[in-house]
Order: sequence, then structure tokens, then C-alpha cells
Amino acid sequence: MFYLIGLGLSDEKDITLRGLEAIRSSTRVYLEAYTSILTVQKERLEELYGKPLVLADRDMIETQSDEILKDADTRDVALLVVGDPFGATTHTDILLRARVLSIPTRIIHNASIMNAVGACGLQLYNFGQTVSLVFFTDTWKPDSFYDRVRENADLGMHTLVLLDIKVKEQSEENLARGRKIYEPPRYMSISHAVAQLAEVEDARRDGVLVPDQTLAIALSRVGGGSDNERIVSGTLAQLREQPPDVFGEPLHSLVIVGRRLHHLEAEYAAGFAVDATVWREVAQKVYGCNFD
Amino acid sequence: MFYLIGLGLSDEKDITLRGLEAIRSSTRVYLEAYTSILTVQKERLEELYGKPLVLADRDMIETQSDEILKDADTRDVALLVVGDPFGATTHTDILLRARVLSIPTRIIHNASIMNAVGACGLQLYNFGQTVSLVFFTDTWKPDSFYDRVRENADLGMHTLVLLDIKVKEQSEENLARGRKIYEPPRYMSISHAVAQLAEVEDARRDGVLVPDQTLAIALSRVGGGSDNERIVSGTLAQLREQPPDVFGEPLHSLVIVGRRLHHLEAEYAAGFAVDATVWREVAQKVYGCNFD
Repeated sequence: MFYLIGLGLSDEKDITLRGLEAIRSSTRVYLEAYTSILTVQKERLEELYGKPLVLADRDMIETQSDEILKDADTRDVALLVVGDPFGATTHTDILLRARVLSIPTRIIHNASIMNAVGACGLQLYNFGQTVSLVFFTDTWKPDSFYDRVRENADLGMHTLVLLDIKVKEQSEENLARGRKIYEPPRYMSISHAVAQLAEVEDARRDGVLVPDQTLAIALSRVGGGSDNERIVSGTLAQLREQPPDVFGEPLHSLVIVGRRLHHLEAEYAAGFAVDATVWREVAQKVYGCNFD
Repeated sequence: MFYLIGLGLSDEKDITLRGLEAIRSSTRVYLEAYTSILTVQKERLEELYGKPLVLADRDMIETQSDEILKDADTRDVALLVVGDPFGATTHTDILLRARVLSIPTRIIHNASIMNAVGACGLQLYNFGQTVSLVFFTDTWKPDSFYDRVRENADLGMHTLVLLDIKVKEQSEENLARGRKIYEPPRYMSISHAVAQLAEVEDARRDGVLVPDQTLAIALSRVGGGSDNERIVSGTLAQLREQPPDVFGEPLHSLVIVGRRLHHLEAEYAAGFAVDATVWREVAQKVYGCNFD
């Protein structure tokens, strides 16, 4: 059996009992190391699981899937991923490969940011499509996310914005010279994200992300256990003014609030506000929430 | 501390280690019994947790929240919910109440259908808003979900359709006479849902749910462990023709596939198809997927 196991969002204790059983029954256990991070190191996981973990980067999962799947028709092999196996990154490639090789597979689900985002108080069924925001460079500022946010906004839907993660990236020079030297990992912060949103709004001026009229909620390390969990709500302008440490440690995610905002959603999120008075004012005047 | 703990989707083993710790530290543990069901009975949970569980229905959580929260400022109290605490049903009411009472709260997340739906092979970020389909009666056939599906469809997005659950409902007669006698629980099946969709399409004729041109995926008991998990894909017309037992036991959910369908999504879901040839044909001709 090939197990694809979600680890949840926070640390080693977010594994499910079913996931733990599968790990302990497995002869080889891989840990996917590129799409996201837990707040703990591999060693903490190994200690709890009682198993050595093989780090598997994107390259390995894509190019050496047969190696990972080897013998999984007769033994148990597990691949561990942060969040849920079907979260932000797909693992359908390796599952399709397993199907071709007639290897039975089982998915063990867990929380991912796609549902844990509900912790901010907005209803999950009021979210539209999810978008990703990548690090801009001087020459590359992909802004198609803006059209997606507008599509959601036109329907009054909230948007979850996933912020870029750069892990195992090579500098242009090292890439050109074929040197496998990697840059330190980079995680986009809320401050960085909000600045990029302002840059795109300035360029496009379509009123989708007007700084003082758009409510947003910043999430950091959402998960059952993390004492570092932070949820901060405010206008985009307010979030931009906050010192970066307000938002806590990475990973960060951002929610753009849509106009169908219900007053109970607004009230719950007011508890996380930079300034609850401003939050309620904008919710009332711009979003039409009635708090009475 | 007041813990709100997600149990995941399948059975007692889907609890996380963190959730289990919180349960074992709690002096009172409530099990929410109305929004969804696990595949196992309360006794199996009690045995594993080593704690008695108090069943809490909607009524109790809404009207006796102070009772549930009692002493949670000095002791640990837990409320267990199937899936994730912020899945289909909100628990913000009781959390807001805890905030008023200055009781610290902690959410322990888990998988919910809102992210586990990814098991069907469609990308979560290509889903629009989620809709609910309720049991029609002779006189009440609420069809606003159709407008929501169209909003998603216009953007090419997939739609997750949550199917109605009737638990602890009273017959009109018992309600009128004030008798607290409840009907047996009812869970909407895929067959029932697809028939209702056809009824609405017939009435509205806006082409959102054309039976032989709309791809859909039925999910049953999606979860890490359930051997009963079933995923069945086909046109709405094909799903309607299937004998009900094809779809397995409740709970069922349905996905309406949007036009942004990627050929890899289509290929993965073809593995669940009633008829993979028809599936690929419709994906190609109607959805414009290119499998080459």
C-alpha cells in the first residue's frame, strides 16, 4: 500500500492516529519538504513516529516517483505532506503513476489552510476560488491573481490568498553555472504581500483592492496547537502600517473579504482587529453590514 | 480552556494526537451530534478516548452554551465536532459567547469535506463557492443554489454541493402537538440529489446542469480510513442511471465540474468514471480538455 498522509498544519502532534499507524507499518517513509513547513524540525517527527524520514524534495517526487513507489505493491510505503495531501499542491502525479503500476493507494486526510482558514471567522462556503501571490521581481510581476480576486469580489465572495514560498531556489548565477547551491528559504510575509497588492492596485486602478476600503485578515501559523497562531484583521491600509512582527512567524496567508460579509462574520473577525472601531465602520459603510 | 476539536471524516482514528491529548485533559467532553456523522458509534469513540461523551444536539449548543462553557476558565472542557470545527457548520456562536465570558479557547483543526473533496482529483483552488442542496418537499423547492452554481460555472469553477442531512426532525404532527418524538435521520443520497438537480434544470432551463453535458463526481465517506470510500464520476445523466448502491453509504457529496477543468484533473477523475470513454469524450468536446 502506498500511503499519502497529511500532517496537518502545526507540529508533530497534528498527525492523526490513523496516519501514525500507517507510518509505523511502513518500511520507508518520505517527508515532502518543499510546499510548506511545519513549525518543527524533521527530528521531532522522527522521534514521535519512531521511524527515520527520508526528505523528498519536488525534484525527487517528480523525477523519482518509481523509486518512492518501489515495492509498495507488497509493503507499506508512506509519503508525508504538510497540511492535506490535496491542499495547495497536487499529488495526483504520483498517484496516477501508482495507478499505472497497479499499486494500491490510500489517502489520509488532515487539516489544510484551505479549511483551517475558517478560524478567521469567515464562512468557508462564502469563499470563491483561491489565488496565489508570488514574489515580484524587477522584471516579473505576474498580476493575474487580481482578475481572480475581482471575479470573486464581483460575486461578493471572500478570497484566500496563498503567499509564495521559495525553497531550494538557485540564484541565477548558480543556475547558469549548474551549481547545486541553494538560497536560504524565503516565505512571503503579510507586509510584503500587502505592499505588492498596493502596487498592483496602483497600476490597474480597478478598485478591487482599495487600501482603506478593503477589509482583509492576516493569518499566521493557523493550527490547533501553535501558540504562535496569529490572526490580525483590518483594512489593507491598516495592515500595511503594522510593524512586521505583529503578524508572527511564517507561514502567512491573507484573506480578502468579499461584500457578502455577514454581520456575524464581521463581528467574529472584529475580535482580531487592529482597531475594532475602524473595522466595524468599514464593515458597515462599505460592506453594508448591519450590527444592530 | 475551551477546546473545539475536529474529529475528521471517517472514524475514531481520525482524531489528531493533539486532539486526543485535549480530550484526555478535559473534565467534560461534548460530542456534537447534528451536523454530520462518523461511520462509528459514540461508544467506539468513548472506548478509544477513555472518556464518557455527552451528546450535544443543535438545540443544546445554541441554547445551553453557558452550561457547556461552565468552569472552562479554570478547567478544560471540549466540544467535539465531525470534520473541522469550521467546516460546513459554524461554531462561531459558542466561541463568541466564550469571548464574552473571558474563557480562553483553542481550535484543533482536522480534515473536512471542504478540503478532502480534493480526493476526487480536482484542484481545490479551482473550486468556487460551496452550495447546499436541501430535501425538496411538495410545496418547498428552494433552488437558489442553481444561481450559485451558475456563478461558479460562468467563471469555469467547480462547485462542491453539500447534501442535506435531517437529524432530530419532528413530523408536522408531532411538532404541532409539541411532542418531542423525532423522525429517523435522513441523509440525501447522490441519486436523490441528481434527480433534484434535473428537476430544477427542467424548470429553469438555463443550461447550467444539462444532464448529458455536465460532468459531476459523487463522493461517499471520503476519509483516510474508510474502506467504504467511494468516488464515482460521470455525466449527471449517467449518475442518475446508476443503481443507488453504486454510491455507497451516506454521507454523500457531489461536485459539479467547471469548464476550467484541466486535462490532468480530468485524467485523474477518469479513474473513477462510470464509463471512462464517455467521461473523456465529454471532457474533450464540452470542456475543451486536450488529452494529447
